[in-house]
Amino acid sequence: MAREPDGTAIDLAAKLRLFDTHWTPKVVAELNDYQVKLVKIQGEFVWHTHEDTDELFLCLQGEFEMHYRDRIESVSAGDLIVVPKGVEHKPASAGESQVLIIEPRGVVNTGDATSEQTAPNDQWI
Amino acid sequence: MAREPDGTAIDLAAKLRLFDTHWTPKVVAELNDYQVKLVKIQGEFVWHTHEDTDELFLCLQGEFEMHYRDRIESVSAGDLIVVPKGVEHKPASAGESQVLIIEPRGVVNTGDATSEQTAPNDQWI
Repeated sequence: MAREPDGTAIDLAAKLRLFDTHWTPKVVAELNDYQVKLVKIQGEFVWHTHEDTDELFLCLQGEFEMHYRDRIESVSAGDLIVVPKGVEHKPASAGESQVLIIEPRGVVNTGDATSEQTAPNDQWI
Repeated sequence: MAREPDGTAIDLAAKLRLFDTHWTPKVVAELNDYQVKLVKIQGEFVWHTHEDTDELFLCLQGEFEMHYRDRIESVSAGDLIVVPKGVEHKPASAGESQVLIIEPRGVVNTGDATSEQTAPNDQWI
């Protein structure tokens, strides 16, 4: 569901106080046909791939790992990581991390994987 | 100039230490055909419009104002703002602010305006 931007400043910390669940991305803004999502993560996600798009993660708080099949990248608060399209990956976070994600509208969080961690899209807060 | 993402974590604070100039966006990553830029701003920018694209700003440090013709939005560290396409705007920052910008590759910082503040594109750091 597209929403035209209205040019208002969005307080990300205030938005993050609106939910507690893990691995359930919430949309806070759109940029053309891209969505800006906030997500809280803890534990391990499912291995998956997005065949058609890169995926941007910005760690706002905490520290998580981006697992690839051949290595692990540590992502701390203030770090940004772009997972290339077609590359299998699995985020994991020992404690809770708070993460901003940017990707095209319609991308499913678990990509090509069927999982109980699959979350509905277009959950605006 | 496109650069394929390699999935490496990028320390934004370390990147910001690599330059001091104002209003000169530096590219740190790409997401499909979008670029992630860092910019330090101080003072007033030129009024301009991007007719074909929204433009995302995330304030990483400091506090700036996004001027529209009918109002001003305050954008503090941790705030995100998406300027809608076709809407005239002018960022201004009393002190120095450090800002992350995401917009399609090829967007000129001064949009439709000709200005001495126009910066070259594709300045990677």
